Amino acid sequence: MEVVNLDLGAESYPVYIGSGLMADGAILHPHIKGQQVCVVSNTTVGPIYGEKLRQQLGGDRAVDYIELPDGEEYKTLDSLNKIITHLLENRHERSTTLIALGGGVVGDITGFAAACYLRGVNFLQFPTTLLAQVDSSVGGKTGVNHPLGKNLIGAFKQPECVLIDIDTLTTLPDRELRAGMAEVIKHAAIRDIEFISWLEENLDRIQSLEPVTMSALVKRNCQIKAAIVSADEKEKGTRAILNLGHTFGHAIENAMGYGVWLHGEAVAAGSVMAADLSFRMGMLTSGECKRFKALIAAAGLPVCPPAEITPEQFVDLMKMDKKASGGEMRFVLLNGLGTATLVDRVDSDLLRQTLSAGDTLCEC
Amino acid sequence: MEVVNLDLGAESYPVYIGSGLMADGAILHPHIKGQQVCVVSNTTVGPIYGEKLRQQLGGDRAVDYIELPDGEEYKTLDSLNKIITHLLENRHERSTTLIALGGGVVGDITGFAAACYLRGVNFLQFPTTLLAQVDSSVGGKTGVNHPLGKNLIGAFKQPECVLIDIDTLTTLPDRELRAGMAEVIKHAAIRDIEFISWLEENLDRIQSLEPVTMSALVKRNCQIKAAIVSADEKEKGTRAILNLGHTFGHAIENAMGYGVWLHGEAVAAGSVMAADLSFRMGMLTSGECKRFKALIAAAGLPVCPPAEITPEQFVDLMKMDKKASGGEMRFVLLNGLGTATLVDRVDSDLLRQTLSAGDTLCEC
Repeated sequence: MEVVNLDLGAESYPVYIGSGLMADGAILHPHIKGQQVCVVSNTTVGPIYGEKLRQQLGGDRAVDYIELPDGEEYKTLDSLNKIITHLLENRHERSTTLIALGGGVVGDITGFAAACYLRGVNFLQFPTTLLAQVDSSVGGKTGVNHPLGKNLIGAFKQPECVLIDIDTLTTLPDRELRAGMAEVIKHAAIRDIEFISWLEENLDRIQSLEPVTMSALVKRNCQIKAAIVSADEKEKGTRAILNLGHTFGHAIENAMGYGVWLHGEAVAAGSVMAADLSFRMGMLTSGECKRFKALIAAAGLPVCPPAEITPEQFVDLMKMDKKASGGEMRFVLLNGLGTATLVDRVDSDLLRQTLSAGDTLCEC
Repeated sequence: MEVVNLDLGAESYPVYIGSGLMADGAILHPHIKGQQVCVVSNTTVGPIYGEKLRQQLGGDRAVDYIELPDGEEYKTLDSLNKIITHLLENRHERSTTLIALGGGVVGDITGFAAACYLRGVNFLQFPTTLLAQVDSSVGGKTGVNHPLGKNLIGAFKQPECVLIDIDTLTTLPDRELRAGMAEVIKHAAIRDIEFISWLEENLDRIQSLEPVTMSALVKRNCQIKAAIVSADEKEKGTRAILNLGHTFGHAIENAMGYGVWLHGEAVAAGSVMAADLSFRMGMLTSGECKRFKALIAAAGLPVCPPAEITPEQFVDLMKMDKKASGGEMRFVLLNGLGTATLVDRVDSDLLRQTLSAGDTLCEC
């Protein structure tokens, strides 16, 4: 088992990574303080892992369970209200612990429920998708979507711990595995050029879910995310570089309707757009651009946005993004592969070129 | 003008108290950081003070305004969603400031909106009811109600500052003034026996809203609340003594339907019940009991709960209260007038006597 520590002062916590963690109650127990637990899962993951996890939680504790419908379209205030009603009806007190068992949607909504149920109870994360394991379960961003955009209602709420059982990846659909790789490649691109090379070399082993490779992959991702989050928990500055591809990506998800494109797929195309814009701004070489696009393509991810989204629609949606500031869109761009930077002002002509490039993105 | 500082480390803020503050932009401006402001008020307070406040906010800033229906029954997730939708439609960014203009409902819901809009924006409080001025606007508790109970969904979110213009009390209905006095008497009872005497002596001046007296009254309340909150911001321990009368009071509000009894009225009757139980537990003398009940009565507040709530109904509702722990009800009791203490176990026979005492409460 590997352990990555998230250093956030009084709110620090460990991320455990390994095979078979779900069946190992000894790791879990010290992180549950009270006598009540509620596992929150969805209709896809719950039937596979719910019972296994509950077996580890029993003993003296009251173990409760709630299942949400699966899908980004259920990441709403309504679902939050359902969880809270369930907790109230089952008399969960301030000392209760919520456990998120599932992907990013389950994690985000459970974390937000933990942030606002009785003004805050403990929670911990059992991410079961690659995307949640390498990204959303670590860092304390929680929330729900609004019809006008993603994650617009939420809180910063750190878990007691994160338990990543890489065995859960064996039951994950291929499309979701690929989507998770988008955030992996993003982490490498913003912070670690050697990790880019490692990914290029190990793509076969990753795609066949070779356990030692997957543990190393998840660990390196958690280390990168932990370092960035520790330096800026509430995203007042540098943490925003984690949003590479997200300004474009959120616009794609929103325009297509949530759930049509997976978040990772939108981030993949959005990252290629960011690389393209970085090249046009003179920050990335043509070779770096092509190398980056090739890695995204090799991972089986989209390398351009849907043709039906017009540049005007992109601009409109991006201005609504919560990372906008003073009516200006903010972009995370690559200042060389392996380094990211936040750019407040982007030449509107260059932006339009990127938005109009279609499948010629990064073919510079 | 008086200033009481709330000492909460990096989240410290001032509470300004005085006459005419609403017309004095110079106090307000340093606490607004960005270029956007949204005033949140209700259909009762907004028409009286909304325009006056907006005049102070203008200049370079975009000043937006949203009005909620007046009443506790609108303190819901639905109203929260309305505020958030309004903010999104008007493109409020992370640098925006929300301003709560109204009583406790407006303050609590605006504060909660500020806590979760884009995972947190600034807000400040302009409380216009006595209850909000002496209690709910200070201390950072925000939230909304759930059909199963009050304030069950929320956050701890401290404002940038609180501005208390005591002139607003002149437009407050008498019933609400009286309701506010319940929290005033509560603060005195839990912390300051001399303040009890001061209230007994000054009740006439208070009821005629004599400005110097009201400034002194609000200031002393804010000092008491600030001292207790500074020692325990997140209510892990001593802060809970501020809930004197609230375990009983919330049960009354819930049983009668929100808004039928005002919060302060329920807290008044609940405080008399707590005093009665304190006497039965041997913690309060008969003389203190009667003196306390007499002050509540002199302030024009109810001194017993509605006859239709049965003891069984009380127990059932109180077990659901979010201050319950391990299935046990927790009570704030008086250990002598001017001192409060948290009691985890209460003899069920004594509790039943209090719940059955009706209008003979404290007639011991």
